[in-house]
Amino acid sequence: MRKKDYLKEPIKHIDIKKYNVVEMIENMGDMAFSARELSRAGKIYDTMLRDKKCTVILTLAGSLFSAGLKKVVYDMVNNNMVDVIVSTGAIIVDQDFFEALGFKHYKGWYQNIDDNELRKLHIDRIYDTFIDEDDLRICDETIGKIANSLEPRPYSSREFIEEMGKYLKQHAKNKESVVLSAYEKGVPIFVPAFSDCSAGFGLVLHQWQNPDKHVSIDSAKDFLELTKIKIKAKETGIFMIGGGVPKNFTQDVVVACDVLGYNLPMHKYAIQITVADVRDGALSSSTLKEASSWGKVDTHCEQMVYSEATIAMPMITAYAYHKGGWKNRKGKRYSDWLNSEGKNFSKKTASNL
Amino acid sequence: MRKKDYLKEPIKHIDIKKYNVVEMIENMGDMAFSARELSRAGKIYDTMLRDKKCTVILTLAGSLFSAGLKKVVYDMVNNNMVDVIVSTGAIIVDQDFFEALGFKHYKGWYQNIDDNELRKLHIDRIYDTFIDEDDLRICDETIGKIANSLEPRPYSSREFIEEMGKYLKQHAKNKESVVLSAYEKGVPIFVPAFSDCSAGFGLVLHQWQNPDKHVSIDSAKDFLELTKIKIKAKETGIFMIGGGVPKNFTQDVVVACDVLGYNLPMHKYAIQITVADVRDGALSSSTLKEASSWGKVDTHCEQMVYSEATIAMPMITAYAYHKGGWKNRKGKRYSDWLNSEGKNFSKKTASNL
Amino acid sequence: MRKKDYLKEPIKHIDIKKYNVVEMIENMGDMAFSARELSRAGKIYDTMLRDKKCTVILTLAGSLFSAGLKKVVYDMVNNNMVDVIVSTGAIIVDQDFFEALGFKHYKGWYQNIDDNELRKLHIDRIYDTFIDEDDLRICDETIGKIANSLEPRPYSSREFIEEMGKYLKQHAKNKESVVLSAYEKGVPIFVPAFSDCSAGFGLVLHQWQNPDKHVSIDSAKDFLELTKIKIKAKETGIFMIGGGVPKNFTQDVVVACDVLGYNLPMHKYAIQITVADVRDGALSSSTLKEASSWGKVDTHCEQMVYSEATIAMPMITAYAYHKGGWKNRKGKRYSDWLNSEGKNFSKKTASNL
Amino acid sequence: MRKKDYLKEPIKHIDIKKYNVVEMIENMGDMAFSARELSRAGKIYDTMLRDKKCTVILTLAGSLFSAGLKKVVYDMVNNNMVDVIVSTGAIIVDQDFFEALGFKHYKGWYQNIDDNELRKLHIDRIYDTFIDEDDLRICDETIGKIANSLEPRPYSSREFIEEMGKYLKQHAKNKESVVLSAYEKGVPIFVPAFSDCSAGFGLVLHQWQNPDKHVSIDSAKDFLELTKIKIKAKETGIFMIGGGVPKNFTQDVVVACDVLGYNLPMHKYAIQITVADVRDGALSSSTLKEASSWGKVDTHCEQMVYSEATIAMPMITAYAYHKGGWKNRKGKRYSDWLNSEGKNFSKKTASNL
Repeated sequence: MRKKDYLKEPIKHIDIKKYNVVEMIENMGDMAFSARELSRAGKIYDTMLRDKKCTVILTLAGSLFSAGLKKVVYDMVNNNMVDVIVSTGAIIVDQDFFEALGFKHYKGWYQNIDDNELRKLHIDRIYDTFIDEDDLRICDETIGKIANSLEPRPYSSREFIEEMGKYLKQHAKNKESVVLSAYEKGVPIFVPAFSDCSAGFGLVLHQWQNPDKHVSIDSAKDFLELTKIKIKAKETGIFMIGGGVPKNFTQDVVVACDVLGYNLPMHKYAIQITVADVRDGALSSSTLKEASSWGKVDTHCEQMVYSEATIAMPMITAYAYHKGGWKNRKGKRYSDWLNSEGKNFSKKTASNL
Repeated sequence: MRKKDYLKEPIKHIDIKKYNVVEMIENMGDMAFSARELSRAGKIYDTMLRDKKCTVILTLAGSLFSAGLKKVVYDMVNNNMVDVIVSTGAIIVDQDFFEALGFKHYKGWYQNIDDNELRKLHIDRIYDTFIDEDDLRICDETIGKIANSLEPRPYSSREFIEEMGKYLKQHAKNKESVVLSAYEKGVPIFVPAFSDCSAGFGLVLHQWQNPDKHVSIDSAKDFLELTKIKIKAKETGIFMIGGGVPKNFTQDVVVACDVLGYNLPMHKYAIQITVADVRDGALSSSTLKEASSWGKVDTHCEQMVYSEATIAMPMITAYAYHKGGWKNRKGKRYSDWLNSEGKNFSKKTASNL
Repeated sequence: MRKKDYLKEPIKHIDIKKYNVVEMIENMGDMAFSARELSRAGKIYDTMLRDKKCTVILTLAGSLFSAGLKKVVYDMVNNNMVDVIVSTGAIIVDQDFFEALGFKHYKGWYQNIDDNELRKLHIDRIYDTFIDEDDLRICDETIGKIANSLEPRPYSSREFIEEMGKYLKQHAKNKESVVLSAYEKGVPIFVPAFSDCSAGFGLVLHQWQNPDKHVSIDSAKDFLELTKIKIKAKETGIFMIGGGVPKNFTQDVVVACDVLGYNLPMHKYAIQITVADVRDGALSSSTLKEASSWGKVDTHCEQMVYSEATIAMPMITAYAYHKGGWKNRKGKRYSDWLNSEGKNFSKKTASNL
Repeated sequence: MRKKDYLKEPIKHIDIKKYNVVEMIENMGDMAFSARELSRAGKIYDTMLRDKKCTVILTLAGSLFSAGLKKVVYDMVNNNMVDVIVSTGAIIVDQDFFEALGFKHYKGWYQNIDDNELRKLHIDRIYDTFIDEDDLRICDETIGKIANSLEPRPYSSREFIEEMGKYLKQHAKNKESVVLSAYEKGVPIFVPAFSDCSAGFGLVLHQWQNPDKHVSIDSAKDFLELTKIKIKAKETGIFMIGGGVPKNFTQDVVVACDVLGYNLPMHKYAIQITVADVRDGALSSSTLKEASSWGKVDTHCEQMVYSEATIAMPMITAYAYHKGGWKNRKGKRYSDWLNSEGKNFSKKTASNL
């Protein structure tokens, strides 16, 4: 087979605005097991959106956007259903920014597949999805080019991703992009392990070519910025897809406030979609009850949903979308704040809050 | 119950040097399912250690050291069974550095536990393990203190962790520490998401208190340093415990070399212990076959072992330890190289390699 | 708490006829991971129903009906969407027959639950569901009473369950029963491990009270009857919820035909909803590809869906229901045939087929 | 490839008598997660064996003997480490009886395997194991032959398996057989879904060829016999490998006693090795705590071990073997009792107990 025979059918993103699942999800609340959990998670998300004081943080892990979930998050950003995003790098750079550059993900398969042949054809595989490695290299290089254009200093990943948004504002071939719309809506995106993706390749190239003066990515600054948001927001709810660093990072922010001397409430709402098993002791699978021992998550409005994300995430978000709790909600534009007062919000100035 | 009633029985670390499981593991190779996988993983690890050209990279994710696996890695470092470590932050800072400061993890439980009571008593829970939150805060502060003592500039996590090693050289109360022994043996430790742990709290405090001039953690520099090691090492094998950022980061390094213009071999050997399920499309669970489509992992000597780490890791490492393939092996001291020639090893100078 | 405080909110069964998910499920077919699998499973089930020669066998394992899935199967039976059912005993006796007697399942919980208190109150727990043990005892006794009323001889479970249907025809308090409607529609129900449920208690009581002459349950006869159906049906498709004995038993029937000298096609269609992990070597999780090595399942139209059943089963069946492939389908009434010609269909008479 | 190229390397059964893991398992008790669970399970099994009043019931599910665990159970039977076995049919017939007839299982693989080619070559695959289907057919026929030789009446699976033991006494080519040694040691083996395996094929053939007078397998009688054992034994402990019908059947026996009017203690000890996930609501994965709400399992000495059986079962049994708690234990020979007094032990005669 030739390369074009593998890369034929593009992944299409699901559009939650088309499916009114409200009654079905509510009826699932009278069943048991995962159906009831899914239903309760939908209701908690809707409650978060109706709670005007509550800042909603979305955490993303797993190959979600290559799997067709990009438009779900795009619609959440555009409808003020989320205020802050914390993500793995692959979702934001290799998948969202990549598609904004005009590239696509393709439907593939995993049974009887010859991965060595794929490699020779420059095709990367994610389970049942194919990607053109040559396209990805252009994505890497674009990151390098953006880095080359910036003043050499430490950036938070959030600042760098805003620069990606600015770049897309001018050059996007596909405007249905979370990076772009988050930039326009002032929704900060944090990627605490920013080098661990296509961005890493671009930045390594940038630093390799500019050994003395270069852009660096300061993950401590990321954590400080998110901590500042928590201090400003006070009440927060988290909607977690998968676990990993984004989950941990976001839960930890409550403790960080405490370390800085701010006694703030735990995350008031928390839902997580995951298939990870609690018994392996990893963070991804640790229960939200366990997080409450650490002072991170309140246990009154929390729900874990045991499901793979491509099924559960569209259903929970479609429920909340059609339920309409977001309609009276305004965007909080935390990016604007971080770029202005929030920038100098520190030990000295915090008393003015 | 009072706090001291919860924090009674310390976790003890298993000592692989005491258990000669060679015959048992070899016989398991004639069984099926996980036993045969475990056996093959043991043999691949032993083969890696006998392959003199091969640099061995260990990746760590999950709450491993709080679960009693610290001494396993400590023995690996001291016996030249590993050349590079890539880890989550919690393992290195909250667990290893924490115990080196004289603190302990405690045997706990998870059934009929009141996490709200634990929170009030300042006890954190990881599944069936308890930690004194007050001890952890001292750990956070110690990181802040180390940051305060350093020249303000971007550091790779690897550089910062060396400073932690230096600190322990003087102040360690418990010398059985991976951070300390890796410092002494010149084994670099990378934590690509360094702020996502107790270190993050310390660094946030440091930057908060020093808003203008401060230490920053440059995750791109981490990736560049690991890429330089791959360029120097050429042949590499990876032993992965869990998945997460450490797995992805380490696999990606082959592609990073390619981006810099170096056509290097994929990881020649790869073993992974995991309970993650391939069907959720997350990276932690992605098969090593899949990684070969990306040009990351060679498919001839790879083995995934489906087991929780506290059972499989001691058995695989005890097998390799008693099999003795490491006896003729010397430490590669990559930290020394990164701090000297490797520092200036860049586009201009790489031709001298 | 008193018993009635636990047993307050009954489980309600989901009604697939109310939710037209056709477009959503079809769009999920352009995504990846479980969403695409779910979509393909829906399409295969619709194809099965449009294939007029194909006999559809449904296998059921797990606590499905207590979780709110009873009406899904009830609607499948009444709309000729299934021809044969193979199930665990608990679903058919403890859950379906139980509810037909007028009893209910209740919404419960599993966190901070005191199972010892439940036991004292005669409440049984299935994860997040409660059952009144006293009601279950009446169910056991009713089975014993039915056994007492029958001619003492070996029965297939299918024959005994028909007697339960006859009983319900007269005494059912809740007529929305799969046992009752299957009886009326001539859909045979096999429970290969019939003693492993409430029926077992009733039959043990019956045999204990009638040590010399009693009803016995001949599991070999079950297997022979299902084999006869396969010989008569020739083309078959299987829709499996969970694994266990029902999955194995149904897959094995192809081999049984071969043992009797009939060279029949493998199951032409096969879908399975499961969360079991292939790596443990158990039958429940064995892939449908693996089954093809045994000559059981054809590999062209098969799909495993990795999801808990309460989410995936309503969606797949709602898809097929609203897609309407079943509308031109007639019931095959295999029970009638087994009770007439099929009864004497044996080595001697099979040549007349 | 030809058939003989696939069937080259036989599976070899692990010999727990060779590996003294006592110290390692005890040290694992000071770790966390699965290692600590494994250690506690080993200790509970040893305690069961030292508790002279306790009858030990072993339940088996999953392809255990084809995976190399046959000798583990063989050694348990021969050293009075087990009094009753409840199993799936495949383990006892397709795997144990099959090997006793002189056939073997072979090491295979699952990656890049062509299952259609395997089918054409008459090779069956279980994950990474191969079986000669032609050998299996001889096994089926041997069961048919044994059935043909018996008086036509309903048998419990236990009675039929004893006839298989008698057959092996004369004809076994490989005497390392659990069916044979259990027959000699008077250890009853129950297979509650006896038709769901190679035995089913043999019995279908037998009934097909003898439509009027034939052997039948009465699963209610199985349940009654196991209930009689519980009434006689009073105190019981269960060691469960996997879940399925054997787990459920054995746990249910306590309730069956209650239905017959005997108020007996719950299972006093219970350990289970499983990888099934509690969140799917299936019985295989239901916790032992949950079972206590049903009055089945006492919660003081219970432990679930989250591991695939080929790793955990040899370690737990090797621990108990070398710990030696079984040394003063005598076989209880329940088969002898069921064949004599137990036979007529019923409503009338039970008062003599």
